[in-house]
Amino acid sequence: MTRLVLASRSPQRRAILEQLGIPFRVVPSEHHEGLRHDAPVRTVEENAAGKARDVLGRVRLRTNEFVLGVDTVVVLDDRVLGKAADAQQAREYVRLLAGRRHQVFSGLCLCDGRAQRLGHAVTAVRFRELDDATLERYIGCGEWRERAGAYAIQGVGSALVAAVDGDYFNVVGLPVALLVEELVASGVSPFEWLTGEQ
Amino acid sequence: MTRLVLASRSPQRRAILEQLGIPFRVVPSEHHEGLRHDAPVRTVEENAAGKARDVLGRVRLRTNEFVLGVDTVVVLDDRVLGKAADAQQAREYVRLLAGRRHQVFSGLCLCDGRAQRLGHAVTAVRFRELDDATLERYIGCGEWRERAGAYAIQGVGSALVAAVDGDYFNVVGLPVALLVEELVASGVSPFEWLTGEQ
Repeated sequence: MTRLVLASRSPQRRAILEQLGIPFRVVPSEHHEGLRHDAPVRTVEENAAGKARDVLGRVRLRTNEFVLGVDTVVVLDDRVLGKAADAQQAREYVRLLAGRRHQVFSGLCLCDGRAQRLGHAVTAVRFRELDDATLERYIGCGEWRERAGAYAIQGVGSALVAAVDGDYFNVVGLPVALLVEELVASGVSPFEWLTGEQ
Repeated sequence: MTRLVLASRSPQRRAILEQLGIPFRVVPSEHHEGLRHDAPVRTVEENAAGKARDVLGRVRLRTNEFVLGVDTVVVLDDRVLGKAADAQQAREYVRLLAGRRHQVFSGLCLCDGRAQRLGHAVTAVRFRELDDATLERYIGCGEWRERAGAYAIQGVGSALVAAVDGDYFNVVGLPVALLVEELVASGVSPFEWLTGEQ
């Protein structure tokens, strides 16, 4: 049966794999994330591959097991926004995003000892207009921490968002449609993990 | 402080209000949902209003409390799909949706003793192509039960979906962007519920 090794500590990514019902274990990567300010695709694909390959080098994979590395950034007008360093930067990021449309890029790397598949997904997100008092209340709730672009669409931050266009789960941190595509390309049938089939 | 009375038993709707951090209590409506096969907007708005008004007639509202009624249907080529009656109908619904784009309509009614606000949201969802074996595995997992259109985008069914266009939470069952708009129109500031402000 197909199993994944998630090369990430992210509780959001764990929750998405649990929701899908895919069996997995977590082995956090020690890869240091890089950020190329003018190249989001290269940033997220290099980071996803770096995380997956780091874990691949440290675990002993079982049969039908794949390592999954993912990296996500927020992009506004060609500016790549990673995690905010502090509340001041979080305030700056969310103010930049207010009333506008930005992109979320995730790189995804699926590999075992024999093959590596690497790709990325892009989802557009449009934010509502925000007045200063609303912005301050959002920053005050602390949800910006450890989140690319300083917001969580699956949290209180859902009230910031007017609409998404693309894979919603990519914005949460794991592009499900791309993961399923890459699993299919690796010979895994969708939902076989629910039935225990090979 | 603003509070809601959710006129629904839906665990998905409860989870979305919890995620938003809005205080609420649940008083399930006894309103009987109607389905107008050729009129999705009228269907969901009438049902949302019917649910909210039923509960409004039975509870004693506190200050700053609103009743929230919501109804959701799936629409494909002008055909309104409610909940599937059995596995056979669920199979038919998901097969109809495969490889295509459909719409999810939710009606939302927010009312107190003095005023009623009624609106609807539409989100487009595009499904992946599905082969028969994949379809059977999905139906076999039973997730189709109690779900408009016989799938759950926030569950195993996320692997059926290629992309959404609009409010993702509308597809789960509660249009967050519309709820926030209607709250603002009712004099509530976004996130005031996090701080205990009036």
